[in-house]
Amino acid sequence: MPYRAPTNDFRFLMENVVGFSQVSETERFSEATSDMVDAILTEAAKMSEEILAPLQRNGDLHPAHLENGVVRTSPGFADGYAAIAEGGWIGMSAAPENGGLGLPMTLTTAVNEMMSSACLSLQLNPLMTQGQIEALEHHASDEILNLYVPKLISGEWCGTMNLTEPQAGSDVGALRSKAEPNGDGSYAISGQKIYISWADNDFTENVCHLVLARLPDGVPGTKGISLFMVPKFIPDAEGNLGERNSLRVVSLEHKMGLHGSPTAVMEYDGARGWLVGPEHGGMAAMFTMMNNARLGVGVQGIGSAEGAYQHALGYAQDRKQGKAPGTGTIIEHADVRRMLAEMKADVYAARSIALMNAVAIDMATATEDAGWAARAALLTPICKAFGTDVGIDVSAKGVQVHGGMGFIEETGAAQYSRDVRVTAIYEGTNGIQAMDLVARKMMDGGEAAFALIEEIEGNAEAAKASHPELAEAVWGAAESLRETTEWLVAQEMTDRFAGAVPYLRAFARVLGAHAHLKTALLGDEARLRLATFYIKRLLPEHAGLLAQVREGGEDVMALTPDDLAA
Amino acid sequence: MPYRAPTNDFRFLMENVVGFSQVSETERFSEATSDMVDAILTEAAKMSEEILAPLQRNGDLHPAHLENGVVRTSPGFADGYAAIAEGGWIGMSAAPENGGLGLPMTLTTAVNEMMSSACLSLQLNPLMTQGQIEALEHHASDEILNLYVPKLISGEWCGTMNLTEPQAGSDVGALRSKAEPNGDGSYAISGQKIYISWADNDFTENVCHLVLARLPDGVPGTKGISLFMVPKFIPDAEGNLGERNSLRVVSLEHKMGLHGSPTAVMEYDGARGWLVGPEHGGMAAMFTMMNNARLGVGVQGIGSAEGAYQHALGYAQDRKQGKAPGTGTIIEHADVRRMLAEMKADVYAARSIALMNAVAIDMATATEDAGWAARAALLTPICKAFGTDVGIDVSAKGVQVHGGMGFIEETGAAQYSRDVRVTAIYEGTNGIQAMDLVARKMMDGGEAAFALIEEIEGNAEAAKASHPELAEAVWGAAESLRETTEWLVAQEMTDRFAGAVPYLRAFARVLGAHAHLKTALLGDEARLRLATFYIKRLLPEHAGLLAQVREGGEDVMALTPDDLAA
Repeated sequence: MPYRAPTNDFRFLMENVVGFSQVSETERFSEATSDMVDAILTEAAKMSEEILAPLQRNGDLHPAHLENGVVRTSPGFADGYAAIAEGGWIGMSAAPENGGLGLPMTLTTAVNEMMSSACLSLQLNPLMTQGQIEALEHHASDEILNLYVPKLISGEWCGTMNLTEPQAGSDVGALRSKAEPNGDGSYAISGQKIYISWADNDFTENVCHLVLARLPDGVPGTKGISLFMVPKFIPDAEGNLGERNSLRVVSLEHKMGLHGSPTAVMEYDGARGWLVGPEHGGMAAMFTMMNNARLGVGVQGIGSAEGAYQHALGYAQDRKQGKAPGTGTIIEHADVRRMLAEMKADVYAARSIALMNAVAIDMATATEDAGWAARAALLTPICKAFGTDVGIDVSAKGVQVHGGMGFIEETGAAQYSRDVRVTAIYEGTNGIQAMDLVARKMMDGGEAAFALIEEIEGNAEAAKASHPELAEAVWGAAESLRETTEWLVAQEMTDRFAGAVPYLRAFARVLGAHAHLKTALLGDEARLRLATFYIKRLLPEHAGLLAQVREGGEDVMALTPDDLAA
Repeated sequence: MPYRAPTNDFRFLMENVVGFSQVSETERFSEATSDMVDAILTEAAKMSEEILAPLQRNGDLHPAHLENGVVRTSPGFADGYAAIAEGGWIGMSAAPENGGLGLPMTLTTAVNEMMSSACLSLQLNPLMTQGQIEALEHHASDEILNLYVPKLISGEWCGTMNLTEPQAGSDVGALRSKAEPNGDGSYAISGQKIYISWADNDFTENVCHLVLARLPDGVPGTKGISLFMVPKFIPDAEGNLGERNSLRVVSLEHKMGLHGSPTAVMEYDGARGWLVGPEHGGMAAMFTMMNNARLGVGVQGIGSAEGAYQHALGYAQDRKQGKAPGTGTIIEHADVRRMLAEMKADVYAARSIALMNAVAIDMATATEDAGWAARAALLTPICKAFGTDVGIDVSAKGVQVHGGMGFIEETGAAQYSRDVRVTAIYEGTNGIQAMDLVARKMMDGGEAAFALIEEIEGNAEAAKASHPELAEAVWGAAESLRETTEWLVAQEMTDRFAGAVPYLRAFARVLGAHAHLKTALLGDEARLRLATFYIKRLLPEHAGLLAQVREGGEDVMALTPDDLAA
């Protein structure tokens, strides 16, 4: 079954569930009218369905590879990339003064999801560039901004992020890459970076690396790290490309999936770079990029889930089994129906969280209101971890729906499962996201969380008259979440961290239930049935998760390394 | 970290938790003394660690492949197979009169788990043969038995099972393969079979296919199916190999994992075969083979989980991160500790279920008691589905513990995850297992389930004095399971099927808690800590699962195919 973009769901969620009207009512996003939204969704859907989706298998079957030090990309990827660039999709949320379309992140989120469903490995390239554009918009000098951002937006150049080193993964502060001033305003960057997604390609004329490195006077740890723009080819002031920089792709990784996306070990050997943001201020700039990318990666999970769901649904509708009643296909079996329903209900829940996250970002951008910024910050790790977990879970169910065919690669179901696996790992593992949620994002004493929970409880309260059973369930779950959050913010970090992953998932379960409940109120029978399914069957998971959280860290840390090795 | 067989856990569980002493007290298994058990576990551990484990990566990196119609196996697999055969591990539970060791299935289960951890793709070969031996012991004529079984036990020949056809997967009754009498007591078998594991190899002199086919007077559906022995080379009465039979490997599948195990499309073109069991009695014989194989596949999941756990633990103990306290490795992080604890606690739970299942099989064999047979039948689908789900879940967490390295194939973590994925699909998908549990295995009105739950409640009751908190939790969960089971057996099939998967998992959660509780009583502090972790943090999942079950099928089936495609 070819991919069909779920534009109806995007429109429905934006109009009725996540409050997009607030965004289009701001002056900043006043151009994002209903007609504009329709046009954008329609165009992006068309490109994703017709141009990108046919490339999905190519990435897996013909991986990006290194040929005499040059990355060769999968067949068709250059054309797919050109379509993304020409459509203006890379810089759709970038500032108009730099060549962007200035559209809301909510729309970018919908478009990114469609591209992710269609061809995840290719979509990762513009996603990285989007993050780089945002980092430069916030932190770069005008000179760097004017030189790089228009080319990144047009897609002539693309961007990467270089954090990780062999000894510095989740602990970025341990990095060893060095930056020495050249005396001409540029720096000589040296060091090795690993896990660099789309470190090179054969379809953009330049590749712009944002590299974290330490200046000679940089203190150890994260506070001594600076950020540098290190282009593959060094441009002159007009953007004409000159000399090849002293950087190279050492090797590409052999990965479990996402073969279309080259993941490189990079070597910088005195490469020329330019400071982005203040000296020793690299982490702040990187976090701008990462926050954007974390929403984007969550959306990758959701897009993969949607693709895997459609693939499995198509199989279940076609696959005849002698004993199946009705249509005679396996979709008539209660267990297959259950799996498909779980998949669809979870995709909807995760999508609503991502769009809600994007709306908060847009409102923060448009209004500079601290409450919206705090909500965006709170939702980002939830979106990233839950979205990618849904991607993994839904694609695993997709394999299962296919039965024996699911394990055979030519079916394509396994590829979704292998490709999406990394999304729970990169841009901060889902464990890191959960720790971010219970630590940094609770430094306000839980204020942003309580505000959101209160909103959910209010909506549930209001829904009790018309949908008492569903509303009671959502209210009760939100109340449990509130109580556990109150408990959580009073704990030491070890107790928070030990339950961080179940806490994040329980929060997402409640957010998803809230979106389904709001949906249920609107009178569409099919959507009501899906909401009922989610609230009655998937929401109850929150109780077991919160029970885990409330156990704290004692029994976790009591299991010593020796116990674990016994 | 090289694989170390968990022989201590096997001994501990057998002695203290799953009641193996009952088995060794029977006349049938009186040779299975404590010394014998020790000798077996030690020898099998040594072979698994030293000979099989080094082959694991070979299977993935150098897949079995077809060369001019002949299967070429992965490097070293022939030697590994020879070691398994020479150790007597293939026929360790087969009857001594046929050349087997007549040892309890409980011991075979432990040995199979070790071999699965060490090299899953190779272990699948003797697992298939074990199933074939058991089917022949129960259903074959003396002539077939005497001709084939000794060679299968010695490993000179190996066995396969041929059920699936392109249009007949879970619905075996739809198969089209034909058997025509040749007039000399043999039959001409024609048809195509798919997903044939280890359909051929280059290290046994013969491959013996048990093939389901329909005789000319066979009615449609499962009642018209007969079982045939169809050897690759046709032996004379003394077992000397003669003519090549008219069967061939058409192609091998390109799979997500388990590359060391060749999965074939087989073509039978009037191949000579011999009836096993009565005409049209093929399904009964096949079920003998499948029940054995289902326990064995559950154990494959557990073995994979153990291998993945050890691999992740080794990484977590070695991987330095600047910020980690104590040893400075990531095992000091609460979230990593949590993942490892979940992995270890779940492996222990699943292993206890498998050994309990095997003990029930042994007791049924030794005593011919219907109660033991019913318990074995009840536990088999739980062991298969939960064991393989644990395999998938633990290996996924293993990838996650590795962070970015987890997605890189050379690390080896991803292989566990890809290899084990099929175990939730083959020998009946886990959905089929769950349906088997709530339908066939509840045809007794739940009698076997209630007997088991009563035993658990009794043990929990007795534990209340010394371990009140843990005992209360287990008792309460067992009671919820009992209530839901009472509800379940009163429902129509659609209502049962819609909640079958969550029901099975909830049952397994309670069984695992029971094993951990029994363990907690025995005074070992480290085991008590693990039991506490499981009962407080993993057992609570049962509540959400049982809530799903109690929702029945209405809201699942209310979601029409149109709803799902909207």
